[in-house]
Amino acid sequence: MARSVDLIGEWGSLLILREAFGGVSRFDDFQERLQMSRSLLTTRLKKLVAGGVLARRPIADAAKRHEYVLTPMGEDLATTIVALRQWGDRWLFAPKQHPHDMVDAVDGTVLAPLEVRSAAGRLVPRADVRLKPTRQKR
Amino acid sequence: MARSVDLIGEWGSLLILREAFGGVSRFDDFQERLQMSRSLLTTRLKKLVAGGVLARRPIADAAKRHEYVLTPMGEDLATTIVALRQWGDRWLFAPKQHPHDMVDAVDGTVLAPLEVRSAAGRLVPRADVRLKPTRQKR
Repeated sequence: MARSVDLIGEWGSLLILREAFGGVSRFDDFQERLQMSRSLLTTRLKKLVAGGVLARRPIADAAKRHEYVLTPMGEDLATTIVALRQWGDRWLFAPKQHPHDMVDAVDGTVLAPLEVRSAAGRLVPRADVRLKPTRQKR
Repeated sequence: MARSVDLIGEWGSLLILREAFGGVSRFDDFQERLQMSRSLLTTRLKKLVAGGVLARRPIADAAKRHEYVLTPMGEDLATTIVALRQWGDRWLFAPKQHPHDMVDAVDGTVLAPLEVRSAAGRLVPRADVRLKPTRQKR
């Protein structure tokens, strides 16, 4: 995942979210994991909080300290993170050489590749995806 | 999509890819669509080419001009783009007020929300996704 992010561009914010999905919540822990400058990390966390993806809240037992947790809106980015990680595993590592598998804790099998399907159930290749203006109620 | 990108951070590169998926390939067309400075666009296109996501190739009928096209690696980001767009449609617009639906050109129905499933077929909620080190052959 770190490699896909380096590759695609300035997705530093996705790195933060990846850590948040992994359970990281404190500034110092993000900083240690990401080796990002404190000022850059501060800027990005603020942006994610302002955007509603992370919430900043006081830590109960530490008067002036705060932690950053995923909001429901942030949690819902899980599918995007899974998609990006599966892509990275396919393209940025030799076959079977990616460092981690994503596994279902309940049945123990790895996650299947995400499939783009139509509402009618058809597997939709990329070339068949069209954008169509929505009919909006006014 | 533009809104989700603004929100999440410096995903300017995703905007470029979104346009590429929409068929844009020439520098001036990217520039007009994205209203990005020429120097920033140049930097980002170079990064995407260096990363193997876009290929730069001469335009047959225009001696010194080039176009930028998705490589197979870039095409394979389609699922990530679909995931991000579905997330944006859910969270960044009032219900049913997102500007475009993604539709299957063959059966005419909208794309279903992507589902994270295990290899065994179970629908996996976010909380049940675990990272497990791969057993690597050495």
